[in-house]
Amino acid sequence: MIAYEDLKNFTNNVFLKMGCPTADAELATEVLLNADLRGIDSHGVARLVGYVRLWESGRINPTPKIKIVHETPSTATVDGDRGLGLVVAPQAMEIAIEKAKNVGTGWVSIKNSNHFGIAGHHAMMGLEHDMIGIAMTNASPLVAPTFSTERMLGTNPIAVAIPADKQPPFVADFATTTAANGKLEILQRTSKDAPLGWIQDKSGAPSNNPHELKEGGALLPLGGDREHGSHKGYCLGSIVDIFSAVLSGANYGPWAPPFVSFLPMPDNPVGEGLGHFVGAMRVDAFRPADEFKSHMDNWIERFRNAEVAEGHDRVLIPGDPEREMIDMRMKEGIPLNENVVNDLKEVGDKFDLSFTV
Amino acid sequence: MIAYEDLKNFTNNVFLKMGCPTADAELATEVLLNADLRGIDSHGVARLVGYVRLWESGRINPTPKIKIVHETPSTATVDGDRGLGLVVAPQAMEIAIEKAKNVGTGWVSIKNSNHFGIAGHHAMMGLEHDMIGIAMTNASPLVAPTFSTERMLGTNPIAVAIPADKQPPFVADFATTTAANGKLEILQRTSKDAPLGWIQDKSGAPSNNPHELKEGGALLPLGGDREHGSHKGYCLGSIVDIFSAVLSGANYGPWAPPFVSFLPMPDNPVGEGLGHFVGAMRVDAFRPADEFKSHMDNWIERFRNAEVAEGHDRVLIPGDPEREMIDMRMKEGIPLNENVVNDLKEVGDKFDLSFTV
Repeated sequence: MIAYEDLKNFTNNVFLKMGCPTADAELATEVLLNADLRGIDSHGVARLVGYVRLWESGRINPTPKIKIVHETPSTATVDGDRGLGLVVAPQAMEIAIEKAKNVGTGWVSIKNSNHFGIAGHHAMMGLEHDMIGIAMTNASPLVAPTFSTERMLGTNPIAVAIPADKQPPFVADFATTTAANGKLEILQRTSKDAPLGWIQDKSGAPSNNPHELKEGGALLPLGGDREHGSHKGYCLGSIVDIFSAVLSGANYGPWAPPFVSFLPMPDNPVGEGLGHFVGAMRVDAFRPADEFKSHMDNWIERFRNAEVAEGHDRVLIPGDPEREMIDMRMKEGIPLNENVVNDLKEVGDKFDLSFTV
Repeated sequence: MIAYEDLKNFTNNVFLKMGCPTADAELATEVLLNADLRGIDSHGVARLVGYVRLWESGRINPTPKIKIVHETPSTATVDGDRGLGLVVAPQAMEIAIEKAKNVGTGWVSIKNSNHFGIAGHHAMMGLEHDMIGIAMTNASPLVAPTFSTERMLGTNPIAVAIPADKQPPFVADFATTTAANGKLEILQRTSKDAPLGWIQDKSGAPSNNPHELKEGGALLPLGGDREHGSHKGYCLGSIVDIFSAVLSGANYGPWAPPFVSFLPMPDNPVGEGLGHFVGAMRVDAFRPADEFKSHMDNWIERFRNAEVAEGHDRVLIPGDPEREMIDMRMKEGIPLNENVVNDLKEVGDKFDLSFTV
């Protein structure tokens, strides 16, 4: 368990040592730790060592010149200049927000970036402007399309954040697979079986083995199998891939660069780096903001009070569990498992920073 | 089996008898029969009797004045004036396309409408303009959120159509539930068991009984249960509901009006009619259209050639099965089951039109 402020100081110093400008280091730290606060441990400081290794292998530029390479009043294509996705994506979202202020909505497709942390962070940036925020990204190929054995798509998450008035905002943020890779990693560490529907083996047969990915298996699109709608998860993952990478000029599908630096970059790249897609819609581009937000309050209250199935306490609104987690972790600290602590110590040694839990 | 032209003439005459202007009757017919051609039988002429009954009960206005009630350069809110969704949605999509021509993208939220046929039709309208088209709608509440027993959401479909160059377009069109209601109706007619994960009984327990909806059960969000990601399907259905109805001022969640005229309208409506949301993005608002489309060709070819799992012929691209169905049904005719034939005969009798198969 470590206090948020301590983890933040350490992480900020690591980004500074990598050569990030002060503002970028702060932004990257905020985005990365937002995952830990929200309980999405797989996307927080657990990945810091991964970013450092990518930087060491020359795949991350700590001082990128992020620029718009194509635009219209409501759109832009951004070249992330191999910067940290943690920095590139929020800057692209700022562009989307500015465009939405001017013409109602703003949509930015981003190339030449890399892992951007949790999609929810970027989507939530619209909330304070009374905007609906949207964020998605493609990722290292781990997912097989329906009827295939080949890893063609990433877990390609989608986040949508919608403001309310008295109620907290609606914040959905989910991988377009049955289960995010982070959940599988938890089973791997404890060597527990995975539920059927999460992964398949290299022949395409359903599997319980959480280590199947190392043996040529693949994660499954949301739905799990054709009978339960895996073709819909395959559609969603594909849409994220196309919006993020084919629109922007990044690498798509099986060409998406791996996050881990020990895997080589795919041959014959079809674009530059990883891709993201972000959007912002002013709610008052559709109806007066106070009207919209009071109906969102009503929507949230009605769903929160829906009849509860036996064996459950309550019906959740997207964003509820993460908000409760933030409250708890700000108070009690952030739990780190042993591997993560060792990785952070290794990072600390590299940069002459001490890491203590 | 009936020839497309014969079914088209009959349907067009029915809409004319309902009092639709000539152009509207033709448009409604085209949209409705597009479902039959694409093999989505539940959304085609099988629903014609339903539209007629809604019209008889005064819930459909055959001569609507469809108008923009709020707008910005990239957005509009449209009042469908209780018109046929089959007519309102394509007109709203035309507005989105015009806005995209001007500022790169166009987004239209629609209130005071009703069932709009297949979402794919409206999304595909962007293709000839080299635009990505998006369409979604809320619908009669049949779906329980994760951990709930109450029917709060419709099957709320999402369609996304993306142009390519030499390859046919990518066209995804899917309900945000494990299985569309139409699939359940097929099992009901044949009294076959439904796979677990499609429906729950009124206590919230998984069920195989395809008649469960009549007994207080509910359809399940994509994912089926919490362990397999039903909270993600619940998020998706909610996003469709909010974009379609809270943004526009239509009825949302459990207040969405039922399609069947024998069910009463919900008490204390929170808006007007049913809601839709459509969008259009010019691909050249992000990068030159020829570049985008040639990369889409490459995307499609690469995915179509992904390694195939044992027991399957090939990996499909979203839109492949429907396109093949169109070719077959234009040639061989459209199969109609006995109930649909009887319904169409009843409609014919009502309007002095003969219906023969």
